[in-house]
Amino acid sequence: MLSLGVDIGGTKILAGAVSESGEVLSEHRVPSPAQNPEQMVATVASLIEKVISEVGEVAAIGVAAAGFINLEGSKVLYAPNLNWRNEPLQQRISERIGRSVVVENDANAAGWAEFRFGAAKEHNSMAMLTLGTGVGGAVVDGGRLMRGGYGIAGELGHITVVRDGLICGCGRLGCVEQYASGTALLRNANELADSSDPLGARIRQLRDQAGQLSGHEAYQAVSEKDPGALMLVEQAAEHLASAMGSIVAVLDPEVFVIGGGLSELGEALLEPLLREFAKQLPAQGFRPQARVVRAKFSNQAGLIGAAELARESAGKL
Amino acid sequence: MLSLGVDIGGTKILAGAVSESGEVLSEHRVPSPAQNPEQMVATVASLIEKVISEVGEVAAIGVAAAGFINLEGSKVLYAPNLNWRNEPLQQRISERIGRSVVVENDANAAGWAEFRFGAAKEHNSMAMLTLGTGVGGAVVDGGRLMRGGYGIAGELGHITVVRDGLICGCGRLGCVEQYASGTALLRNANELADSSDPLGARIRQLRDQAGQLSGHEAYQAVSEKDPGALMLVEQAAEHLASAMGSIVAVLDPEVFVIGGGLSELGEALLEPLLREFAKQLPAQGFRPQARVVRAKFSNQAGLIGAAELARESAGKL
Repeated sequence: MLSLGVDIGGTKILAGAVSESGEVLSEHRVPSPAQNPEQMVATVASLIEKVISEVGEVAAIGVAAAGFINLEGSKVLYAPNLNWRNEPLQQRISERIGRSVVVENDANAAGWAEFRFGAAKEHNSMAMLTLGTGVGGAVVDGGRLMRGGYGIAGELGHITVVRDGLICGCGRLGCVEQYASGTALLRNANELADSSDPLGARIRQLRDQAGQLSGHEAYQAVSEKDPGALMLVEQAAEHLASAMGSIVAVLDPEVFVIGGGLSELGEALLEPLLREFAKQLPAQGFRPQARVVRAKFSNQAGLIGAAELARESAGKL
Repeated sequence: MLSLGVDIGGTKILAGAVSESGEVLSEHRVPSPAQNPEQMVATVASLIEKVISEVGEVAAIGVAAAGFINLEGSKVLYAPNLNWRNEPLQQRISERIGRSVVVENDANAAGWAEFRFGAAKEHNSMAMLTLGTGVGGAVVDGGRLMRGGYGIAGELGHITVVRDGLICGCGRLGCVEQYASGTALLRNANELADSSDPLGARIRQLRDQAGQLSGHEAYQAVSEKDPGALMLVEQAAEHLASAMGSIVAVLDPEVFVIGGGLSELGEALLEPLLREFAKQLPAQGFRPQARVVRAKFSNQAGLIGAAELARESAGKL
């Protein structure tokens, strides 16, 4: 039977039905009423009803949200982009639709999709890094999604890579998110374009044409092998590899899955990343080396993982 | 029924019988034939036989060793201080004593002792940091010892805290082990004593009296509240807190257990550590904060944990 997944983000909500092999059969996308918790619950409920009206009965319903979810999956402890603080999201949606739902952090849900159906499906342990607006993460150890003591494990973007480095939204200094997210890459690209460095010339030109830099222009500059853009990707890869070295020390994963918008740079990111990662492996030569692969899913990962986590949770009852 | 634990280190081997509540009832200690794998197996076997001859039948036998143990617990992949590389330790001991044994990494075994019977027994998730010659680690998530994809998880001493920092025995730069181990503290104390800095005067005096600095002199200087010694502990605490911030991001543990020789400094270490850790918590105020406590066990932790892991493993068969 199908299960149903919803992925609540800061700009959009995605919902769809997901098969037992991870295929999305019916998908809807609406803008996220991010600043209005009441309307958010109503929008999610109506999306769920819409999908059910199209596909019929579903085995379970999972909701992924961009925020800290408590260990029980009942509350959103904190969601900086969604105006939630200690929000009893599970109960609010359940009451609205008249049946139970499972709530999970969006990066964890995306990681579970890659672990069950995607880039890590042959493995038993995994660390996923999602390089988007921020750097998200998910960890699987021994076939089990790692949730931590309070439900907030796997926030891999907040590993420190530069002592006394750039200030992060989390309040700490030097988090890898400040060096290897899409936001960081665009910030550095703008700085390079603003500078008198000749390496910034092509990026400046693309920015002038488009009005402002976005992932599109960054992608184009990298595709053209613009030396300035490649240098920025190389710097991001170096910091990401440093964080991955620390992740190996802590988690010893079989595979790293690299997802998010930045992963769409493909080999232009993976090649320097693998090169830098090779320098960052603790006790190199004395232990098996983790693989590094690109994510299989992009935007749908969160809803697929949420649906599958809900299906598995229902199976355990 | 009692179970039996052995802890193989670089300088000594400890063996003893352990009750179901974690008490050690019979303990033996012999020097470690660290450079002779043949003699090591013979020594371990004779210690096991000695303990059994004293306490009678045991439920299970666990062996902790200072090295990388593979996920199956059959081989020592690498043990820098024990001259082992891909050593089938489990089989070699089993054949010698005529019954099965469970092999585990020594820091993991020590962590399991703290989780089951010690400082973390009220918790469901834990990160343990053992500050000794190096910085060892063990991780429990959801009541389960985290082993990673290849058996080498929880090497928390190899989290990077200083970009392009001091070179570590693992080959990377800036690992926390190089800043917060007992070895690092003594190295820094010797440097301070060698310098013309007046803060090094008391440490130099203690070194001159003893011939060389050891943990004993460091402990004394800290006990006297020597400003130079306190400064060195403060620096170690700052780096350790930085690593703990990254550990919170990855693992979100309920509690940190601080063990090893350096933890015997007690409040002189814990006070600056808690102060620095408070600055290093990602998303502070938006999530529950991990506790930080001292380990309950010292030298016996490895054998207690090895015995208990073996007992639990036997219970699963």
